[in-house]
Amino acid sequence: SESFEQVVNPWEVSGKIDYDRLIDKFGCQRLDVSMIDRVQRLTSRQPHVFLRRGVFFAHRDFNEILDAYERGDKFYLYTGRGPSSEALHLGHLIPFMFTKYLQEAFKVPLVIQLTDDEKCIWKNISVKESKRLARENAKDIIACGFDVTKTFIFSDFDYVGGAFYENMVKVGKCVTLNKSTGIFGFSGQDCIAKIGFPPVQAAPSFPSSFPHLFPGMNNLRCLIPCAIDQDPYFRMTRDVAPRLGYRKPALIESSFFPDLQASIFLTSLLQVIDMYSRLLHYTFFAFKLLNALVTFSQGENGKMSASNPNSAIYVTDSAEDIKYKIKKRAFSGGQDSSKKQEGVGANLEEYKEGSMLTGAVKARLAEVLTEIVERHRRARAAVTDEMVDAFMTVRPLPRMFE
Amino acid sequence: SESFEQVVNPWEVSGKIDYDRLIDKFGCQRLDVSMIDRVQRLTSRQPHVFLRRGVFFAHRDFNEILDAYERGDKFYLYTGRGPSSEALHLGHLIPFMFTKYLQEAFKVPLVIQLTDDEKCIWKNISVKESKRLARENAKDIIACGFDVTKTFIFSDFDYVGGAFYENMVKVGKCVTLNKSTGIFGFSGQDCIAKIGFPPVQAAPSFPSSFPHLFPGMNNLRCLIPCAIDQDPYFRMTRDVAPRLGYRKPALIESSFFPDLQASIFLTSLLQVIDMYSRLLHYTFFAFKLLNALVTFSQGENGKMSASNPNSAIYVTDSAEDIKYKIKKRAFSGGQDSSKKQEGVGANLEEYKEGSMLTGAVKARLAEVLTEIVERHRRARAAVTDEMVDAFMTVRPLPRMFE
Repeated sequence: SESFEQVVNPWEVSGKIDYDRLIDKFGCQRLDVSMIDRVQRLTSRQPHVFLRRGVFFAHRDFNEILDAYERGDKFYLYTGRGPSSEALHLGHLIPFMFTKYLQEAFKVPLVIQLTDDEKCIWKNISVKESKRLARENAKDIIACGFDVTKTFIFSDFDYVGGAFYENMVKVGKCVTLNKSTGIFGFSGQDCIAKIGFPPVQAAPSFPSSFPHLFPGMNNLRCLIPCAIDQDPYFRMTRDVAPRLGYRKPALIESSFFPDLQASIFLTSLLQVIDMYSRLLHYTFFAFKLLNALVTFSQGENGKMSASNPNSAIYVTDSAEDIKYKIKKRAFSGGQDSSKKQEGVGANLEEYKEGSMLTGAVKARLAEVLTEIVERHRRARAAVTDEMVDAFMTVRPLPRMFE
Repeated sequence: SESFEQVVNPWEVSGKIDYDRLIDKFGCQRLDVSMIDRVQRLTSRQPHVFLRRGVFFAHRDFNEILDAYERGDKFYLYTGRGPSSEALHLGHLIPFMFTKYLQEAFKVPLVIQLTDDEKCIWKNISVKESKRLARENAKDIIACGFDVTKTFIFSDFDYVGGAFYENMVKVGKCVTLNKSTGIFGFSGQDCIAKIGFPPVQAAPSFPSSFPHLFPGMNNLRCLIPCAIDQDPYFRMTRDVAPRLGYRKPALIESSFFPDLQASIFLTSLLQVIDMYSRLLHYTFFAFKLLNALVTFSQGENGKMSASNPNSAIYVTDSAEDIKYKIKKRAFSGGQDSSKKQEGVGANLEEYKEGSMLTGAVKARLAEVLTEIVERHRRARAAVTDEMVDAFMTVRPLPRMFE
């Protein structure tokens, strides 16, 4: 009966997620309305919909970042992606959309880590394939519209070494195997490459890992927008930072993430739909429909998975694919005729209130998603290899705070 | 009563060492006379005294290296040093003297790994200090007379990254924490930097870790001259190699090593004295004297330690230092007057046979060691920063097999 018990770590999110419990367990803070108001005052623009809607809902020391910004101090952003699949699904884009907003609103530099080493280790794909996926994913990330004069994208297989490796070793010296096992749940059957990985994700939290970007700026603050399942990495990082004479990185944490449990992913889809189309009338139905879709394909605790192409809408899906997935694969909970639907209502409790027929909701949803996907595809098609090289070249960014 | 039980791993060697037991336990092979004769035939020169005297006494697949060499196939040498102290003591030079012989006799390229990361992790010295020591130690190594057209010396903090890091990850994926704990004796109290280190020492065993040296030569064989306490690293490396599609590195293993137990170190000193001065008459006494010296300073199980400057003869010691250490600190087991010595004999059983007085042996020993140290000091003084850069530059070596 406890099959829904929540499991949240960087590699697994399952069960019914209780975010309040998660905040308590992890020891982070809830992002409250006053803080969002403060963001509005400081940046003189409306906070991002993901802030207003509580998609980014927790933080660590984000208030200190705002204090520093108010004083005129600089900071930088650090986010990342584990390149485990060829194409991103829509949920993957969410953290990048939000990071782009932060970069624009605060006028700060950004480092994006592609953890091709992590995916090679955990997903058992070859180094070569992992590096290829990292570069393909970089194109999708660039398509979100980041500013090349403020953004450095790097793959671990390319960039680990030198000052970055020094910080990996420094972090690794401060964390015992017992402590790491407590944080990440490693076991004796795990390979030592896994045990060795957390310092790789910690290192970008420290400006000294990027001597070409932040020379002599060892006190520069770092803000990490990420999904809350990545919190363990940065709890560890924050724990060791003072022992290394470094600042703790601040965090702003969302409730969803690529490869997360269906319902979390769907919440993000809902937000995308809301943001892009303002189809507020439809979002409720869309959410229920997609929730049902996943229930149908994978069972109630199913995860978004690159190995099940029917479980998510990918940025590479055609309009036909999207229509097919929504029309054919989606189990809406509605009845199979308009007569029954009107008479009995949908199986899902809240869905009963629906006055539209399932088919009409599905059609509108497919339209909205197709629009998002087409927009992304056009942007990605415009990303050349030269642009990828430009973002990924190890170089100074002289205008990064302008 | 079992306080002398042997402990041999890369970080600790203590107790009375039974090399036959060690060979059985580790599963390597004894280097026999027929193999040494074969070295002589193949290289057309007298095998190094360290081979003839059994200082290098064990191997793994050294016969395959000889087979390959006989067929005209190429191989490369890999050795290294953990830079834990400013100055080397004489024992530290032994593996490099032997490696230099192998390089000359077989006309092969050599990579020398300075594990500044390892020493930073285990000895708790700063990254900066560890890197400085690596560079200082490189000067001592270069002073042994390596050929810059065939030799690449690298520090891990400088060189880890790229293809080398890829191999670290590949190796780390193949070794479970349980397996690593079994090999190296790690515990939960050890830091994760330690758990992550073995793949760093494994990586140079594979030619693909050096794309600037061995491009497209992924099948090139590797021979590792090292002390037998390093065997666990390479047992692990040999175990994973076939799973990565790589050749297993071959090993030729000695009975002594820097930072090893006194008596092992002293065996090497004995060999140095033998080699340099051919004072065969004195070596027996010299050995006993120095053994007694260490017994006096540190107790019978004491280890050569950089933190006890009296426990070893350093290449930086002056003639006066050496005289002092031998005359004043050495407890020879002899009696305190020539009369007693002649009447009772020394405490040490074999020393009874000695016909020379302790003082005379000590004086001759000091002379011999001073000569060795002076010679090294002159060679080291001639090593410029430019020479260090030349050896440590990442570069192709077009004449490495000539």
